[in-house]
Amino acid sequence: MAEGEQKKGLEGIVIADTRLSKVFGDVGKLIYSGYEIRDLANNASFEEVVFLLWYGALPTQTQLTRFRETLISEMTLPAPVLTAMKSYPSNAHPMAVLRTAVSGLGLYDAAAEDNSQDANFRKAMHLTAKIPTIIAAWARIRNGKEPVAPREDLGLAANFLYMLRGHDPEQVEVDAVNVYLVLLADHGMNASTFTSRVVTSTDGDMYSAVTAAIGSLKGPKHGGANEAAMRMFREVSKAGSVEEWFKREVKEHGRRIMGIGHRVYKAPDPRAEILKEHAHALCAQKEKCGLLDVADQLAELASQDAYFIERKLFPNVDYYSAIVLDAIGIETDMMTPLFAMSRIAGWTAHIIEQWADNRLIRPRGNYVGPTDVKWVPLEERVD
Amino acid sequence: MAEGEQKKGLEGIVIADTRLSKVFGDVGKLIYSGYEIRDLANNASFEEVVFLLWYGALPTQTQLTRFRETLISEMTLPAPVLTAMKSYPSNAHPMAVLRTAVSGLGLYDAAAEDNSQDANFRKAMHLTAKIPTIIAAWARIRNGKEPVAPREDLGLAANFLYMLRGHDPEQVEVDAVNVYLVLLADHGMNASTFTSRVVTSTDGDMYSAVTAAIGSLKGPKHGGANEAAMRMFREVSKAGSVEEWFKREVKEHGRRIMGIGHRVYKAPDPRAEILKEHAHALCAQKEKCGLLDVADQLAELASQDAYFIERKLFPNVDYYSAIVLDAIGIETDMMTPLFAMSRIAGWTAHIIEQWADNRLIRPRGNYVGPTDVKWVPLEERVD
Repeated sequence: MAEGEQKKGLEGIVIADTRLSKVFGDVGKLIYSGYEIRDLANNASFEEVVFLLWYGALPTQTQLTRFRETLISEMTLPAPVLTAMKSYPSNAHPMAVLRTAVSGLGLYDAAAEDNSQDANFRKAMHLTAKIPTIIAAWARIRNGKEPVAPREDLGLAANFLYMLRGHDPEQVEVDAVNVYLVLLADHGMNASTFTSRVVTSTDGDMYSAVTAAIGSLKGPKHGGANEAAMRMFREVSKAGSVEEWFKREVKEHGRRIMGIGHRVYKAPDPRAEILKEHAHALCAQKEKCGLLDVADQLAELASQDAYFIERKLFPNVDYYSAIVLDAIGIETDMMTPLFAMSRIAGWTAHIIEQWADNRLIRPRGNYVGPTDVKWVPLEERVD
Repeated sequence: MAEGEQKKGLEGIVIADTRLSKVFGDVGKLIYSGYEIRDLANNASFEEVVFLLWYGALPTQTQLTRFRETLISEMTLPAPVLTAMKSYPSNAHPMAVLRTAVSGLGLYDAAAEDNSQDANFRKAMHLTAKIPTIIAAWARIRNGKEPVAPREDLGLAANFLYMLRGHDPEQVEVDAVNVYLVLLADHGMNASTFTSRVVTSTDGDMYSAVTAAIGSLKGPKHGGANEAAMRMFREVSKAGSVEEWFKREVKEHGRRIMGIGHRVYKAPDPRAEILKEHAHALCAQKEKCGLLDVADQLAELASQDAYFIERKLFPNVDYYSAIVLDAIGIETDMMTPLFAMSRIAGWTAHIIEQWADNRLIRPRGNYVGPTDVKWVPLEERVD
């Protein structure tokens, strides 16, 4: 090994001070700017949480009203971005579409290259408002439907469902989407958030940083876990008996249960518990149950199994978010885009925080290749 | 300070073993896969260097012929990507255009989500071939001209100039572009290369990783230095006397000379010396001198000044690359895109290397915000 400390995954290396969120993995606790995630999930709209992450304090009624009005008024997309989306192949990966459309938004923002704090707050507003519109529009366009414009009288979660379907959503569904958005908005220095900070560290503009973060969240090791959990629930459901599937696939073949276990949480993930409650509410009140029964049975089996007990493996946020989103009709491959629709709050907050104390993030590589190789002219190289 | 080691810029942290390039800053030496940069610059085509970075060895004549044929045949853009570019506002930042168009390329590659090594080599070929076409097309589109399609009988550097202008370039210009592409193709674990590895570390696809790298290179602290140097040469040229400008702006006002000094090189940057020779060749043979005289005079003044001598500040690659690119008519804000057109070789090589030993790159944040803040209902918050 050459000079420098080798940390391929940067484990344990602290790259920034942050006031945004903290995960207490041992006790299953998550806070945003000091507030417990359950308090926020039970009481706050996503708009309030965005305000909290950006400004470090909850808004007053007056502030929230103004904030929400501005946000909702920003949801409309530049017409050329929508036109370009209509030309995309219908089988394109929804996260690749989101990445391209968000990158494209930067072309139509005259202040894209202004990296002042004021301009960054404005860009954060643009992005947080327009990402739901991009996602809803793409869900329709790829199915041959015309996109639906946002409405001024609906909040962000309700607007998303309205734009997705073209008709008013039910309150219990709006609540489920809202709570999902609240729960996923930030989570420490995760990989996509780190990506956004690395791009910012070159004095890169916010569109570049968020486009990069979307590409990072798109990675199966990061944002794709909810989709993997959903596909597994379908497999279990088709197999018939959950107990037999568990015994054969998990115990005999040693397969991992997607959405159970978490690198940081060694206690129940509070976000999973909250989403489980919403899944049950959706099922009881509106018969929107999806595969909740499968998920509950499987989680119950795991909770009584020595392997899972000893390793402190509990359902994580992906497990029950897949159930909730599926129950309200979100297509499986649109689940990661919904993750982005929430996490944009955290990305933009981290980018603004990075700008306040910005330093180029540039580690080293350890050269292990040859040195002093002699040049050989092309005609002397042997086939 | 909480747990973990604080490294805001990741200084000295090694995140990967690499066989691609090494900078010997103390002696002003740079190698790609063991070969001295001067040997490559004097003898190799950009295509040979791409082959070297991807496969770790120089190609034989047969291999190179086949490689170049494939590369050139890949230069054509998907029609919808060109159509979308025609709709972009003409004042959009060329790097934002490149970022969006490259992200869009992923939508038209049916193998975009295949992360096998074979697929990654194919994607690396697509990207290396198509980026010059995007840049040349945008340079024309934004000036109201029709894009020009690539030709099968020209190498990459010549094709780029041909597509930019619509007529055959002169050999000395092709040589200058080729040497520029060779010199900028890789440079250790720079910020954009690191960005591409961070995205890859989530098992992210190559289009996501390269799109992110473009956003990172776009940052003024990273890829924008050549443009800054060029703007400074213009200012000096307008000021009349180089000597007076140096005395007033640098010595009295303490301004930095853009393109002089480098964080790693404490000896002359070999790339700058090679580009300086090409700048003189262009000037002598074709009277394409640009502001070479200004650059030479300014460098001469700095080289005799105690401040620069003591700190070992020499012209870096940005200094003379700006002069060379300007002399052959590259618009100043297209210089960073040309950097990307070269560095794509290194990005894709690093991405392939990262895949071979991939681990999620995820550092930590140090939470310094409040804890245990009590929820206050909206109606009780005071304005």
